[in-house]
Amino acid sequence: MTTKTVAELLSQDVTLQDVTVKGWVRTFRANRFIALNDGSTINNIQCVVDFENFDEALLKRITTGAAVHITGELVESQGKGQSVEIQVKALEVLGDSDAETYPIQPKKHTFEFLRENAHLRTRTNTFSAVMRLRSSLSFAIHKYFNENGFYYMHTPIITGSDAEGAGEMFRVSTLDPKNPPLTEDGDVNYKEDFFGKETNLTVSGQLEAETFAMSLGKVYTFGPTFRAENSNTSRHLAEFWMIEPEVAFMDLAGNMDLAEDFMKSVLSYVLENNKEDLEFLDKRLQDAEKSLPQAERSPMNLIDKIKFVVENNFKRVSYTEAIDILRNCKPNKKKKFKYIIEEWGADLQSEHERYLVEKHFKCPVILFDYPANIKAFYMRLNEDGKTVRAMDILFPGIGEMVGGSQREERLDVLKEKMKALDIPEEELWWYLDLRKYGTAVHSGFGLGFERLVMFATGMGNIRDVIPYPRTPQNAEF
Amino acid sequence: MTTKTVAELLSQDVTLQDVTVKGWVRTFRANRFIALNDGSTINNIQCVVDFENFDEALLKRITTGAAVHITGELVESQGKGQSVEIQVKALEVLGDSDAETYPIQPKKHTFEFLRENAHLRTRTNTFSAVMRLRSSLSFAIHKYFNENGFYYMHTPIITGSDAEGAGEMFRVSTLDPKNPPLTEDGDVNYKEDFFGKETNLTVSGQLEAETFAMSLGKVYTFGPTFRAENSNTSRHLAEFWMIEPEVAFMDLAGNMDLAEDFMKSVLSYVLENNKEDLEFLDKRLQDAEKSLPQAERSPMNLIDKIKFVVENNFKRVSYTEAIDILRNCKPNKKKKFKYIIEEWGADLQSEHERYLVEKHFKCPVILFDYPANIKAFYMRLNEDGKTVRAMDILFPGIGEMVGGSQREERLDVLKEKMKALDIPEEELWWYLDLRKYGTAVHSGFGLGFERLVMFATGMGNIRDVIPYPRTPQNAEF
Repeated sequence: MTTKTVAELLSQDVTLQDVTVKGWVRTFRANRFIALNDGSTINNIQCVVDFENFDEALLKRITTGAAVHITGELVESQGKGQSVEIQVKALEVLGDSDAETYPIQPKKHTFEFLRENAHLRTRTNTFSAVMRLRSSLSFAIHKYFNENGFYYMHTPIITGSDAEGAGEMFRVSTLDPKNPPLTEDGDVNYKEDFFGKETNLTVSGQLEAETFAMSLGKVYTFGPTFRAENSNTSRHLAEFWMIEPEVAFMDLAGNMDLAEDFMKSVLSYVLENNKEDLEFLDKRLQDAEKSLPQAERSPMNLIDKIKFVVENNFKRVSYTEAIDILRNCKPNKKKKFKYIIEEWGADLQSEHERYLVEKHFKCPVILFDYPANIKAFYMRLNEDGKTVRAMDILFPGIGEMVGGSQREERLDVLKEKMKALDIPEEELWWYLDLRKYGTAVHSGFGLGFERLVMFATGMGNIRDVIPYPRTPQNAEF
Repeated sequence: MTTKTVAELLSQDVTLQDVTVKGWVRTFRANRFIALNDGSTINNIQCVVDFENFDEALLKRITTGAAVHITGELVESQGKGQSVEIQVKALEVLGDSDAETYPIQPKKHTFEFLRENAHLRTRTNTFSAVMRLRSSLSFAIHKYFNENGFYYMHTPIITGSDAEGAGEMFRVSTLDPKNPPLTEDGDVNYKEDFFGKETNLTVSGQLEAETFAMSLGKVYTFGPTFRAENSNTSRHLAEFWMIEPEVAFMDLAGNMDLAEDFMKSVLSYVLENNKEDLEFLDKRLQDAEKSLPQAERSPMNLIDKIKFVVENNFKRVSYTEAIDILRNCKPNKKKKFKYIIEEWGADLQSEHERYLVEKHFKCPVILFDYPANIKAFYMRLNEDGKTVRAMDILFPGIGEMVGGSQREERLDVLKEKMKALDIPEEELWWYLDLRKYGTAVHSGFGLGFERLVMFATGMGNIRDVIPYPRTPQNAEF
């Protein structure tokens, strides 16, 4: 008799057969009903213990969190909410769980408490659902790119280049931290460090992805990236995962098409494959928001919101149009914005993005053609000489989900831009080589994976959608 | 007329139609035949230029490495080795490539030279095939686990724990590298560092994966891991990717079954999906070995070797049996080994592993039940009190491919082991919690991804199977 998972048992027809299952006790009611879970599904299987036939000492060991091995008959369930249950014939406690000290009691815990017990939090419905969805989204991403002719590329994590400019970096070193070797000038002598130069954790794999796109055509990265920024918010992590496709011969319009198709495809995948987890999270969010005033509740429930994104076109709006809308909108005129939009060229703040997405368009928005001077050096300059072929995708409730651009493929223009920003050519000689030898139009974007997981799970804090969050003052587990 | 990839065109029937394609010139022969590649396949499409109808200045710009946009008629090929070719009607050079200075000439380059030009090396047949195979193997891994009910888990890269003990670590810090803050005792004050404590790059995600296995059942990691070891060999990287499945309620026998089934499945996948790349690499290896004496050549060609692994059972041998075999083998008796095997308890060196795999068994070997004192603290002690339920999988030509074990699930035994090794309990309180609350038998293994790519591509140097290798004194690109 092979052990089956709870998911397998619950989807099985009753044929009056003996089954065996291993899992953890979620609850034990009335000395009779065990709700057993093994992670294979959000649902528990009910195991009915005929307590008259079991040793009392054994029954006492059936506590929340205990690991048990159960054998019994799979029968039609008498209770509601489930089709089958197990009539227990034999029960072995594999690992006890002291009811007095076990942190995950069968009651509501705050997310803060569960963060401090992140090693146990996937034993709750909410976090097991979130992590299954995270896994499912990851697979959907690989599947999408694989089916569309992209190659997966592992860009380096430790980088000797600090020219990416996407943010503050973490230093990686094996030098004596207290007495580092010094040069004659009294600086730290990184020539003696492991890599013979100063190295940091990557903030983006884009530049390296471009090298592969310019030979393999269509590639993507999906790996960890880092920001050493001291921002203790519900939307920032020091370590997070990013997806960065990069495609040769694709312009900005193609980039927008790709990003939109991609997002819709991976969200469709979870609608299809994670129904039960989504239904649970949907209900959880509604329950959590019940105590809020109507105005602060989500305008759509979770599943409807995901369906809305899958079924509707993203609105494409140029930066210039967006500035017009913002300049003339009520909150701007009434000075309700913290940063009043006065003229073209202003950098958009989160309050402006949220207004556009949540109040004005009420759907995902792709903003494009931004002023050159508020965007990165590698973005393709438009013929107007003042905007670049950049795009940001903004999502309701999340803000920026994707940032991308067509890349500057012209060697002379790129060199000028780097000079203006004091980026030394020696630093990026290999990046410039791509423009020297067989250059072509190419584009790509970056998607913060945790933002996507937040959107698909309805979780409000980014620390709750990654197994072990890294934030200022916190690298526990 | 939409642009098609070379792969699409080559698999298409000729229907006398106009097509358009973009890619890079590999060679331009006789002012007439362009071999065009766009990365979608190892094969080039031949584009025939009727040079009488084209401007001479334009023809001169058709050089190796140039990016071109070609439109023409797809016709049956006159030449051999291809079914279709393009009769060029229009040609635009998108990006020139100066024939004088372009590093990737249409000739044989050494792998050392190409490593120095790693940003361009995927423009060669060998490296494009290797990187396509790497991508394909990655996808096969995700597919295998997804189909078998595993959840993908992103374990943390930055870790505050240094108890994993798998090797030297890289320090991650944002402190002033020259004048770090000091404590009253004169040590570096990591309380002032970004995470409020000393942090390093992870050497393994196993311990964290165990936390998820003990709630979600079956999980795996696939992420970068790091070793700050000064080993400049063809088999070591400072940054490499590792796959680590971890399964609740699975013992060592199940672990061996899983590892073997997994390896066979992912290798089958590339046999099926990467035929042309494998055929190319197979031939490359044979050519490269032609100059070697017969004894030094690979005993099987690449594809046969992969098929052999897929089709044959791995030989399972206990450490004790292996020691018997080694003690009595010729090279040991004749003192040909550098380390002579004298008694039970000896740690096996690469020479011994190679003898077992390549000379004695001539197939992949799973060694299991190692002496406890040469293995990690978390491995399950056997009832004999001196061996642990560890396993290593050894592959011909590669050596150790997989290392795994059943984990010690008994709190008291684990604590004793940690005490003996001076691992403080406070450091791993969360790991111990797994044994306090609902503990159960569980197992897992780690697979070095680059070793797998080496095996599947026949490449002899690990630096040639990862996009941008990180090794002592080298973090270029």
